[in-house]
Amino acid sequence: MKKIYMEIAIKEAMKSFNKNEVPVGCVIVKNNKIIAKAHNLKEKKRSVIYHAELIAIEKASKKLKNWRLNDCEIYVTLQPCPMCSSAIKQARISKVYYGVENKNNNISNEIFEKKDNNASITTIKKICENDCKKIIMKFFENKRKMQ
Amino acid sequence: MKKIYMEIAIKEAMKSFNKNEVPVGCVIVKNNKIIAKAHNLKEKKRSVIYHAELIAIEKASKKLKNWRLNDCEIYVTLQPCPMCSSAIKQARISKVYYGVENKNNNISNEIFEKKDNNASITTIKKICENDCKKIIMKFFENKRKMQ
Repeated sequence: MKKIYMEIAIKEAMKSFNKNEVPVGCVIVKNNKIIAKAHNLKEKKRSVIYHAELIAIEKASKKLKNWRLNDCEIYVTLQPCPMCSSAIKQARISKVYYGVENKNNNISNEIFEKKDNNASITTIKKICENDCKKIIMKFFENKRKMQ
Repeated sequence: MKKIYMEIAIKEAMKSFNKNEVPVGCVIVKNNKIIAKAHNLKEKKRSVIYHAELIAIEKASKKLKNWRLNDCEIYVTLQPCPMCSSAIKQARISKVYYGVENKNNNISNEIFEKKDNNASITTIKKICENDCKKIIMKFFENKRKMQ
């Protein structure tokens, strides 16, 4: 694990923040090289599939010309939702590092823990947790002020 | 529910079949009009995100210029995987009709049943089950023969 990758994911999250999107960023790494980075663009793209993780998976797959992202690791500022967790698992990413945990999201844990045809996956949480949390909290604080 | 929509989803699945992709097709309907149809293209596009349902959600969102697919129904030949189930729920699709059940996929049921910020969702299974099953079985039978 290299903290630097999460720091880059946080920079990606800031791009979402500045576009008034829920601030989530991620980075996909293979053999100590970043092969994709992305940030949430759901509102701008007007489609639920534009979460940071799905965009990054699509970019990494294009780069490797393969849907199998073997030996890849993903760094995400927020615990992935079930859509993204399942995509990460199906893409055979082997390790997930994330910053902030979402306590209402047990299903993602189940997806990662389930033994199936996909590769087994390791999750490591609370990486740069405070910095990741700060952006999310600031975003929702601003939203409440605007109401 | 109109059987005709599942029949069109089956025609979509046949397109995947003819491209040597796992044959899954789907249709999104709003106010009795088809607003999107799609078939699985994971191998051709070399990315796990090209499941029929995600492609159709993207098309429907573009058409409605909104990530909220309120009052939309989706017809899918096979029970959606957790990635697609979560996308369907986040897109606020209200009804899911599917053909063949996947007995190893309890997590999708959990996603649909979970009470959260998204709209509640109704699932209706075993629509045109035999026809949907036939294509899937034929596909895997051919695969086994080729081995």
